[in-house]
Amino acid sequence: MIESKIKQTVRDVKDFPKPGIIFKDITPILKEPLLCAEIVEALASQLINIQIDVVAGIESRGFLFGPSLAQRLNVPFVPIRKAGKLPYKTIRESYDLEYGSAVIECHKDALLTGQRVLIHDDLLATGGTVVAASKLIMQLGASVSAYSFIIALDFLNGRDRLKSYSDQIYSLASY
Amino acid sequence: MIESKIKQTVRDVKDFPKPGIIFKDITPILKEPLLCAEIVEALASQLINIQIDVVAGIESRGFLFGPSLAQRLNVPFVPIRKAGKLPYKTIRESYDLEYGSAVIECHKDALLTGQRVLIHDDLLATGGTVVAASKLIMQLGASVSAYSFIIALDFLNGRDRLKSYSDQIYSLASY
Repeated sequence: MIESKIKQTVRDVKDFPKPGIIFKDITPILKEPLLCAEIVEALASQLINIQIDVVAGIESRGFLFGPSLAQRLNVPFVPIRKAGKLPYKTIRESYDLEYGSAVIECHKDALLTGQRVLIHDDLLATGGTVVAASKLIMQLGASVSAYSFIIALDFLNGRDRLKSYSDQIYSLASY
Repeated sequence: MIESKIKQTVRDVKDFPKPGIIFKDITPILKEPLLCAEIVEALASQLINIQIDVVAGIESRGFLFGPSLAQRLNVPFVPIRKAGKLPYKTIRESYDLEYGSAVIECHKDALLTGQRVLIHDDLLATGGTVVAASKLIMQLGASVSAYSFIIALDFLNGRDRLKSYSDQIYSLASY
């Protein structure tokens, strides 16, 4: 039900960010407050048997639903951001892009040792950023208890790259 | 009440992003789910007499509370993003930085003519980005019905720059 609603609402944008890519644009979802509420509820429902102490969301689109999900689960939200954006002391991880690499960071005091962290982003593609986010969590002595995405592009095999951190990988709509 | 809670929780980070600036770090707020819920409720309470058809939030920190506020008000959320991030057709506005300028965008179909838009960001500083966001709203034939910030740095006089778009400028904590 939620899957078909999401798929009906998401907009395919051809050739973004470059020729040959069909981008899943979630901005039409954000225009539907009722659907947004259903999405947060559905994400939370999938996680009902998972121990989650913290939700970590990946900048920027992971900030759109991550804080609402953390609120719904009544746990802290930790932002994982692009290099240079977080003001306090940070730890960092780099990940490969098609050309070159990028760096993400989180605050050194974002997590406590042993905390079980749900990593959230809007969409799972190849999983490169999400692997880097997982390494940040582990650098701080915490663990990844699960992953939660609204959309997963299964043909890109992102799930295979995440399994070694946590095999609890959830999404609401798959392609 | 909410103001003192916010001020007690926000972290001052000296010399970020550059020497002489004291940055207001809101990440400690995000660690407190109860305080986050109170903030969304307080933002909504300030707006009770304002006509709001849409909440527009400014990337990235305006995405942390903007979607929750839109949800609370039961209206659509429109993301205003840095140049090149939105996949569909966009309109753009540039604004001055200390050295050079930056561009923000929103989707061409983000708003309908005549819609009354609340612009949200976490913090009002000099208001440069928020003015550019206001111009985007007007480019689309919509209007700014109010501004809503968690924190306002009143000594930077951002309010004066916003007045000509809307004199309904709300914040929960002022410095």
